[in-house]
Amino acid sequence: MLPYNIDHVAIAVTDLEASLESFRRQYGVEPLRREVVEEQGVEEAMIAVGGSQVQLLAPLVPDSPVGRFLAREGEGLHHIAFAVADIDAALERLKDSGAKLVDEEPRTGGGGHRIAFVHPSAFAGTLVELVEVVE
Amino acid sequence: MLPYNIDHVAIAVTDLEASLESFRRQYGVEPLRREVVEEQGVEEAMIAVGGSQVQLLAPLVPDSPVGRFLAREGEGLHHIAFAVADIDAALERLKDSGAKLVDEEPRTGGGGHRIAFVHPSAFAGTLVELVEVVE
Repeated sequence: MLPYNIDHVAIAVTDLEASLESFRRQYGVEPLRREVVEEQGVEEAMIAVGGSQVQLLAPLVPDSPVGRFLAREGEGLHHIAFAVADIDAALERLKDSGAKLVDEEPRTGGGGHRIAFVHPSAFAGTLVELVEVVE
Repeated sequence: MLPYNIDHVAIAVTDLEASLESFRRQYGVEPLRREVVEEQGVEEAMIAVGGSQVQLLAPLVPDSPVGRFLAREGEGLHHIAFAVADIDAALERLKDSGAKLVDEEPRTGGGGHRIAFVHPSAFAGTLVELVEVVE
């Protein structure tokens, strides 16, 4: 079985502070870390929920993938990320299955992990991220 | 901390068989169980991913919540479900925080769990389900 956990579920938000405060008030949880990922044009906050995380994504500028998503669809669920032990093998399997990839090769994402995105056309309109997690 | 895990992430799909086959081919995973939930007008399939699950939701009829979602937005991420130990306490906290609830009182969902939905207006346009999981 390739993905061994849901690493995180990402939600696009316009106001990171307001969303964190809302999440805190409603569920009593605090973010684990916050990080600006310039390459993706976002500030992200990770909130631990059991063995997985909820990721809040706020765009640094409107002309960025998350900024365009917000302009098009408004706030809401953005992608699901699966933790994999070997991202090269996972990408290979996806390629063999005919899946369209956003990233043909892994790149470096938040937390320094090797990541790759899989195009929503590959699975039921859902943007999927693979995150290599070395245990 | 109220939610103690991501119970599942739900994806609305038009063709359950085709989506299960695609998921199997791409990620090598099989559904744990399939269930028709007449009350919600869906057939659902649960796929274990680590300690959480991906839930595929296909409408039984077009005039159902998931059928209308598909007509409006197409296939894609539908909601996120948090496992909670005490759904009454979780709903109480949400009410106190001013969150708009879809279900003021828990009802019975898939797998026989007590569940309740929280309106997307309560958190960044995201439909949230609470699932009481008794350990």
